Order: sequence, then C-alpha cells, then structure tokens
Amino acid sequence: MKIILASGSPRRQQFLKDLELDFEIQLKPVDEVYPPHLKAEEITDFLSELKADKFKENVKDDEVVITSDTIVWHKGKALGKPKNTAQAEEMILSYSDDWHEVISSVTFTTAKQQITKSFTTKVHFKILTKEEVSHYVEKYKPLDKAGAYGIQEWIGLIGIDRIEGSYFNVVGLPTHLVYETLKSLEL
Amino acid sequence: MKIILASGSPRRQQFLKDLELDFEIQLKPVDEVYPPHLKAEEITDFLSELKADKFKENVKDDEVVITSDTIVWHKGKALGKPKNTAQAEEMILSYSDDWHEVISSVTFTTAKQQITKSFTTKVHFKILTKEEVSHYVEKYKPLDKAGAYGIQEWIGLIGIDRIEGSYFNVVGLPTHLVYETLKSLEL
Repeated sequence: MKIILASGSPRRQQFLKDLELDFEIQLKPVDEVYPPHLKAEEITDFLSELKADKFKENVKDDEVVITSDTIVWHKGKALGKPKNTAQAEEMILSYSDDWHEVISSVTFTTAKQQITKSFTTKVHFKILTKEEVSHYVEKYKPLDKAGAYGIQEWIGLIGIDRIEGSYFNVVGLPTHLVYETLKSLEL
Repeated sequence: MKIILASGSPRRQQFLKDLELDFEIQLKPVDEVYPPHLKAEEITDFLSELKADKFKENVKDDEVVITSDTIVWHKGKALGKPKNTAQAEEMILSYSDDWHEVISSVTFTTAKQQITKSFTTKVHFKILTKEEVSHYVEKYKPLDKAGAYGIQEWIGLIGIDRIEGSYFNVVGLPTHLVYETLKSLEL
C-alpha cells in the first residue's frame, strides 16, 4: 500500500512519520470554499473531500490518498486561517475563559472507495490578557493555523488548562483514526 | 528571578524553554520512597516536596526551585517507572480499553515559601493488542517513563483516543500551572 499525503502541513507530515508510515507528499491547490449552510464537521468533511476530488480520477490500485481539513468551531461559526494579525488577535481573544471545538476530518481515497471520518476535541482557555495574545501573535505569527493558534506553542502551554478529546486532533490530525482506518482499508 | 529546574527529564526541560523561561538545571538524587498509605496526588505531592527538601536550606532570595513528580494512577494503584520490559508490557496492557489517570505535582520553593500544586488528566486507550504493546516496548524502551509510556510516542498516537484535562500534564508538566504560579510568586 502506497500512502499519499495531500497536505503541506509539517505537523501532519510529522504525525505520519511518528505513526511509522512510509508516505509521499503530493499537493494540488484547492479553492477552499464551502456552501454557507454547512455547520461544524459538515464543513471539514466537505473540504476534506473537496481536496480528495483532485486526486480521485488518478488513484492507482495500490494507493491511498489522505486529505484532511481542520477548523475551529466557536459560537456557531467556523474559524479558519486568519487573514492578518488583527484577525488572529481577535480570534484568540474570543477563546478567553471559554470552550471551543477543534474539528478535523480525514478522507481516505482508494481506487475502490472513499471514507471520511471526523473527530471533535473540546478545548478550554483560561482568561487571556491582551498582552499575552499580542505577544503570541507577534512572535509566533500563527497565520498558517486554523483558528490562529498552535496548541503546542507558547499560547497553548500557558493558556489551555483543559481539553476533552484527542490532543493530536487539535494539532491537526486525529492520529488514532488514521491508524485504525488504514488498518481496516481493503485495497 | 532565577529559576532552577530540578529535573533530568528532557521533556520538562523543553517545556520550560517553550514557556520562554531562562532556567538552570540542578539535579540532586533522591530516594523516591513514599509512605504506603498515600493515594493518588498525595503521592506526587509528597515526592515533589521530597525532591524540594534537598534544596530548601540553600535557596537564595532571588531563586525559585521547581521540582515535580508524575505517576499513573490506575485501579487504585500508583504506577511509576517500570523495572523491566515485562513490567512495562504488563502496565500498558492494563490500560487497554480503559481510562487511567496521570497525576503530576509541581513544587515551587523560594526562600520565603513553598507551594505545591497537582493536576490530574484522565486518559483513555482503545483496545490494545499484545503485538502493538510488544512492538512499542521493544522499539521505544519506555523504562524511563512513569506508567511505561510516552503519550507523544507511537503508542500514544495510535492508542489514545481521548483525554480529559491537560495534555502537557501527561507529557510530564502542567505547564499552565507553572506559568500561573511563577507569575503569582512573591519573591
């Protein structure tokens, strides 16, 4: 089985290495737009499958393509990557003293079938000060991260006092689902 | 404020770096024995303070010494570092399809005061096979780890589907408590 990871995220690539998988990276640009009526995991399912669609026609018999999408879901809204530092600060401050959800979907596409699984982790931040948030955004520049933060970075270490669900899902990939699904795939 | 970390754990050292703290490492060997009637966080509180006792007499006015202890608490028993690979396999298999608790205590010792805080994270493993456990123990040799596993290693990625509490606490240090306490310390 040849695994193709369609993600430029260094964190997802590292997870596949840590899962002891041999894989190849193939990137195909996708315009990440989804119908506005979608909610929560419907959005990540849709975007993960949209990314998979680019590969679908050309998957060989011994291949599986892994695509994935992660969002933060908070107060009924999906937060993706922030457009600029002001928006990043606004997003992070909105998490202060509150729970939000991090939702990832992963799609496994083979020549025979397509499986999409999603996983939700609840994350709680302590009360964050404006100084803490500005420091983080200026120093760590989280513009490449859904929801504008990396849990494994300074703001996560000082600010997140509790999660419920998979930590790895918050970093960007529900690793236990990837392992379980790859084991079960009939190629 | 000069921070002294009294821990040889590379994971705890990395956390202090990621918290952007300047610190020095000082190690003093301690015989990690606790009274048998202690339970759960009473054990980690006791051992963390026992480690601090070695420093107590010599803490200078501008210093804070950080000591820490982590155990796994499962089925009414404390699991520390395994003695050998057979015990490591036995410990990990006992977590299969079940919840256990990871408890860390951290002690902050200054010339004026001593504060100990503990934090508990619940961790759930899926059903683990003997093959998965043997593979992990042989390849990753987790004899230096309380409870015989590192959540950030292969067995954690494939096996842990849910936690409740702080992830960093499971790796070995409740980082949010360290940050919060250092900020509040009157030196």
